[in-house]
Amino acid sequence: MRQAGRVLPEYRKVRERAGDFISFVKDPELAAEVTVQPVDLLGVDAAIIFSDILVIPEAMGLPYKMIEAKGPWFEHTVRSQADADRLKIAEEGDLAYVMDAIRLAKRELDGRVPLIGFAGAPWTIFAYMTEGSGSKTFSRAKRMLYTEPALSHALLEKITRSTIAYLHAQVKAGADLVQLFDSWAGVLSPEMYSTFALPYIARICDALSKQVPVTVFAKDAYFARAALGQTSCCVIGLDWTMDISESRELIGWNKALQGNADPCLLYSDLKTIKKETEKMLRAFGPLHHIANLGHGLYPDIEKDKVRCFVDTVKEFRF
Amino acid sequence: MRQAGRVLPEYRKVRERAGDFISFVKDPELAAEVTVQPVDLLGVDAAIIFSDILVIPEAMGLPYKMIEAKGPWFEHTVRSQADADRLKIAEEGDLAYVMDAIRLAKRELDGRVPLIGFAGAPWTIFAYMTEGSGSKTFSRAKRMLYTEPALSHALLEKITRSTIAYLHAQVKAGADLVQLFDSWAGVLSPEMYSTFALPYIARICDALSKQVPVTVFAKDAYFARAALGQTSCCVIGLDWTMDISESRELIGWNKALQGNADPCLLYSDLKTIKKETEKMLRAFGPLHHIANLGHGLYPDIEKDKVRCFVDTVKEFRF
Repeated sequence: MRQAGRVLPEYRKVRERAGDFISFVKDPELAAEVTVQPVDLLGVDAAIIFSDILVIPEAMGLPYKMIEAKGPWFEHTVRSQADADRLKIAEEGDLAYVMDAIRLAKRELDGRVPLIGFAGAPWTIFAYMTEGSGSKTFSRAKRMLYTEPALSHALLEKITRSTIAYLHAQVKAGADLVQLFDSWAGVLSPEMYSTFALPYIARICDALSKQVPVTVFAKDAYFARAALGQTSCCVIGLDWTMDISESRELIGWNKALQGNADPCLLYSDLKTIKKETEKMLRAFGPLHHIANLGHGLYPDIEKDKVRCFVDTVKEFRF
Repeated sequence: MRQAGRVLPEYRKVRERAGDFISFVKDPELAAEVTVQPVDLLGVDAAIIFSDILVIPEAMGLPYKMIEAKGPWFEHTVRSQADADRLKIAEEGDLAYVMDAIRLAKRELDGRVPLIGFAGAPWTIFAYMTEGSGSKTFSRAKRMLYTEPALSHALLEKITRSTIAYLHAQVKAGADLVQLFDSWAGVLSPEMYSTFALPYIARICDALSKQVPVTVFAKDAYFARAALGQTSCCVIGLDWTMDISESRELIGWNKALQGNADPCLLYSDLKTIKKETEKMLRAFGPLHHIANLGHGLYPDIEKDKVRCFVDTVKEFRF
């Protein structure tokens, strides 16, 4: 359950101490502290390292700022082959603060629950590096795919190699499994997704899946479910628009499915949360399912509601 | 092709003359002028009345502002039953400026091409009235669906009745067909969409479809295609993520399909635009298809690229 900390007053206290968001991400002790909080306070049975997908562009030479209430913003974006050539392949040393946080979190967790590492999927990272910020349409990023396919592939290649190095380092530091987030998968057509997103995801799965289980969560890419089922990943994340039995049919039984409650369900009263969560668990069935939301938590969701979701999952018996 | 004007320098000239966006929408002569422009300058074979979906909240008693580069913003939102009770059902008289624009545009078009009227679908209008602005998640709007279902239905009912009155008035003023835009369909789960969106769309289709053809475009609601195929609408709009033959299979042959090129395709060179547009036309086949983009045009697309798309469609022979 990503961003589980956001609902915790204990998280917000650390957040205040940390200063700006990027300093927070770069402080291994604070990052490790908030990584462990949801395990202690919400009872989730895995932790996910506190970090940000945009550490990769930064490690490649494209720094960003996180602007309050607006999101990420890049002063420089990639617009030409020369811009892309200037970027380096990220190495473990560029992201040492993440590995430090993983080691610290592992020590604090002390084997109680597994620790999940993560990275953005190459298309999503590409989207930020070319768009320069969040966007409803990512039309500048897509414009590059349409007008500069060779440059796009060259940049995606660099991102992919950086991501593989980064995830390998996370595993070496102690991550028990890794997850790829393709947050902006849904703005591409199925054909563009097959051309510019899936092959790079497949490469990353192949590079990591012999060492650890790999989860791929391609938000809104309902059209890619069957193709993701053909990669070497171990788990496929579903968002709440994706029908459970249809997804199982498209993906088959070789993968675990993760998800997929609507985060907004957790605005409901406890009785409704319990009822709907149990309905979801029955729909997934007793095998190959990791109960989760279909996306991250929203900051205004109450802690008790999240606990209710977690408790319902843990107490449920088929 | 909605928002076709945005790419025209001729549109931007009128836009400057008009002052703020809402005054522009409320000026029938200017609205009629920009409605006709794409017919003359781009060669499209239908016009869509220049207006905004948020004229309905305003007519119901909830005014809004359009903030440059940010989008719509409501000073007051609906948060309680009392807020909802205070709203009126919009009547023709509240939106006389739209009917005036339709009559003027019809006169200018002089039968050359049909004129399309439109409205937002009830869930999308509800989303703005409760959220108060655009949003990536519309979590405040969804929170109301989850926590206040009775109030939500009461508000959706008022919006639906307002929309039916509004579209009837548009038809009376001369609209040859009408289109419903459910722009935020994709943030709801299939179950929530069936509960809070589809029944109201179906009611509007039933109320209008004996008079004029009704088009429903539920962006991102890939899961609702089969259900939309069961309404009394005449045309279903597809976005560019929706596979054409799969959509036809889900919807059947009783409906025309509209769409579905990725607007970003129009950033490509002319050769690519022609090739991809022809591929799309062949995929839809010669029957029951209205060639269009899968969403509105983006303002930085070049006019010549749009013309190329339009010309390719008009010149194509199977």
